[in-house]
Amino acid sequence: MTYTFADLENKINMAINELDYEKEPNSLFQPISYILSLGGKRLRPILAYMSTNLFDDDVDKTASPAIALEIFHNFSLLHDDLMDKASIRRGHPTVHKKWNANTAVLSGDAMLIDAYKHIVKVPANVLPEVLEVFTTTAMEVCKGQQYDMDFEKRLDVKESEYIEMIRLKTAVLIAASMKIGAILGGASKKDAGKLYEFGINIGLAFQLKDDLLDVYGDQDNFGKQIGGDILSNKKTFLLIKALEITNKENNAILQKWITAQDFDSGAKINAVKKIYDELNLESLTYKLIKKYYLAGLNCLLEVNVTEDRKEELLTYTNNLMNREK
Amino acid sequence: MTYTFADLENKINMAINELDYEKEPNSLFQPISYILSLGGKRLRPILAYMSTNLFDDDVDKTASPAIALEIFHNFSLLHDDLMDKASIRRGHPTVHKKWNANTAVLSGDAMLIDAYKHIVKVPANVLPEVLEVFTTTAMEVCKGQQYDMDFEKRLDVKESEYIEMIRLKTAVLIAASMKIGAILGGASKKDAGKLYEFGINIGLAFQLKDDLLDVYGDQDNFGKQIGGDILSNKKTFLLIKALEITNKENNAILQKWITAQDFDSGAKINAVKKIYDELNLESLTYKLIKKYYLAGLNCLLEVNVTEDRKEELLTYTNNLMNREK
Repeated sequence: MTYTFADLENKINMAINELDYEKEPNSLFQPISYILSLGGKRLRPILAYMSTNLFDDDVDKTASPAIALEIFHNFSLLHDDLMDKASIRRGHPTVHKKWNANTAVLSGDAMLIDAYKHIVKVPANVLPEVLEVFTTTAMEVCKGQQYDMDFEKRLDVKESEYIEMIRLKTAVLIAASMKIGAILGGASKKDAGKLYEFGINIGLAFQLKDDLLDVYGDQDNFGKQIGGDILSNKKTFLLIKALEITNKENNAILQKWITAQDFDSGAKINAVKKIYDELNLESLTYKLIKKYYLAGLNCLLEVNVTEDRKEELLTYTNNLMNREK
Repeated sequence: MTYTFADLENKINMAINELDYEKEPNSLFQPISYILSLGGKRLRPILAYMSTNLFDDDVDKTASPAIALEIFHNFSLLHDDLMDKASIRRGHPTVHKKWNANTAVLSGDAMLIDAYKHIVKVPANVLPEVLEVFTTTAMEVCKGQQYDMDFEKRLDVKESEYIEMIRLKTAVLIAASMKIGAILGGASKKDAGKLYEFGINIGLAFQLKDDLLDVYGDQDNFGKQIGGDILSNKKTFLLIKALEITNKENNAILQKWITAQDFDSGAKINAVKKIYDELNLESLTYKLIKKYYLAGLNCLLEVNVTEDRKEELLTYTNNLMNREK
């Protein structure tokens, strides 16, 4: 059978609710329970399940890696929020704000170990391969976060460097979720590889869409404050591209706003957005998103299963691409 | 053949020197290379090798888990030093002092993942069992660190709670190193279990000896400042035991020194040591060390290999117990 998005979302949310963090020491496990309860799209486990389901009617064998991928993702959010000094995650205080920095460090460590606790439950015959994908990916996510932090201190980041950073920080975990799901479903090496490539491409498109929505999203749909990335000088694709291609004069204006200590929020957003508009960055970014999305679809096309099995995955990724928040 | 301590120390140091952290981003990998180069006893990998060697002449199969155990241990030191705000580790600045807190968080994360990268290289037939021991142990080490931090805010920690804390924070990793070494050597479940118990007992004895040396060590041999734990109010076995068994009057004196902001270092050390002396804590702690050490030796006695194969391990642990620093 083919599971719908709703079936799978339900599966993963039930599995997360059943995780037992009512353990001692409470001070270590409560923050883990807290961050996992804040919700989110559950993108990675759903993609893992869908990838298994391309090849196999039984998706429950993917339960452990699905949970592991979601725990790992939340571990990386927990530590990233600490490093980025972010106060809010999914509308709630971040762990280091609600508790303290030490709690964020240690509960995050425990989550990373807990992710391994779940991933090692896959059948012994696929264990070495799944672990290889998971561990390589986990290290790449760390590298991506390091590049992201390194880029904060630079004004000369190139587009290619930015794409490599988001590939590591965001796309590889999405791709790995699909590859691990495919391996559990008994996919051929070639098909698992094609799904990985599909994941890389939609992961890149997904992050670029995030960057775009922050500036050109509809305030009523977006949920967050439009222009938040501009206010915090976040090195998004738009800012990096603007710094790369704009003339000297506008470059100086951008740098002035980036370094300004006291400013009117609306004025900063308008000034930066004006430069983005002049450079046609909205349509330029859309073109790039489309390029990656289409490259992804081409990979999925080559996966050797009947088209009707791909339908749910196609609908899901299409909805993600067209989301307004 | 039986490898000597010197052979094995050489093996592990060579393996650490050969690790390649000359990778990008440099800002992520340089701190890993740094902390691993600071030396240390290499206790855990040496015990892993010796445990394999009890059962098998070929110890090189233990190279990957040995490295993994040393990397994991150094990961925990790196994050603990950050949480404990420690400035010096093995005579050199700690990672968060030499770089910054974010570097300590992320490079530590990368080390934990790197430890897994090495541990998964064990032969597939023992992989599930080795991973189970390693992951359970890693989580226990986190629990131990959390209890240690929780205890900082308490003045009523009981001896049994303290022993459980050091079991988790220190002893289980030593025990796991021996168990993993034994599994790689092809030990029976019973023998691997006995070596684990041996490791728990010598791990406890080892930590208690550490606590004791801080107060009653010989300054010329010790290398560190005698009384350092007293000055930093570290909840050692001696302080916890003193707070538990002393009379009201001395308890008040201890609490006064613990909470004092401005004090003469020598006066504080002398005052606290005077109470320890009155309570006979030196001999009481030695008795406890001996109790655990003997319990450990009894476990080793039951391991089903000829006595001559145990000699190197016995000499090594005996030297550890009698060390003056």
